[in-house]
Amino acid sequence: MGSEKRNLDELFGRVTEYFSPRIVGAVDGVYIKVVKVKGQDVPWHTHDGQDEMFFVVAGALTVELEGRNPVVLNVGEFVIVEHGTRHRVFSEEECRVMLIENKDTVHTGDVLAAITKSVAEQLDPGEP
Amino acid sequence: MGSEKRNLDELFGRVTEYFSPRIVGAVDGVYIKVVKVKGQDVPWHTHDGQDEMFFVVAGALTVELEGRNPVVLNVGEFVIVEHGTRHRVFSEEECRVMLIENKDTVHTGDVLAAITKSVAEQLDPGEP
Repeated sequence: MGSEKRNLDELFGRVTEYFSPRIVGAVDGVYIKVVKVKGQDVPWHTHDGQDEMFFVVAGALTVELEGRNPVVLNVGEFVIVEHGTRHRVFSEEECRVMLIENKDTVHTGDVLAAITKSVAEQLDPGEP
Repeated sequence: MGSEKRNLDELFGRVTEYFSPRIVGAVDGVYIKVVKVKGQDVPWHTHDGQDEMFFVVAGALTVELEGRNPVVLNVGEFVIVEHGTRHRVFSEEECRVMLIENKDTVHTGDVLAAITKSVAEQLDPGEP
């Protein structure tokens, strides 16, 4: 991806599907991804050895962590779900989220769901 | 830092010094940091084995990569400076940047500068 300038609006503009993360960069062992969320399609799941950051760029995202009250993230807010923490996310209206997660992380964790995408499927076709 | 919700405006509000990154989270091997930039205090430097992401949250940041034209990042834009790429950043007016970089990265790379801060100095005192 070669140290090129990238624009989040443009990157989100290419995303046509909900719950389908697109890899837009890599920093050492983690991927930077963009994902649009609308609805309640993400199952409860856990990443045993990996943290996962949700940073809201537009709209609002609800993050549920097992055994706690749901947290609503608005624009400019983030949560880092620590490894081993069972969680799910949803949004009534469309929202735009930057995800930061380990290159090895399966975005639906230990659960294979209808929305589960492989890393190959997450690679931005606009990228070399 | 325990999967708590965090707000960028609040985090930047605690930053009183330019060129002084504050660690506001960790995702596996990388730190998430916030830094205010104003001026030309960052020397040209290189991180040999580590990538570094600059994501602009407010204002505009100029990123210079050796041998290329300078790149101006506005709000919502980012560059991932690949490891081994000599670079420096500056801003005429105050800007707010989210940094994503390896836990081992020295923010001024191979160059010890007046602004160089250790990781201990970058830890947010508001954090447990």
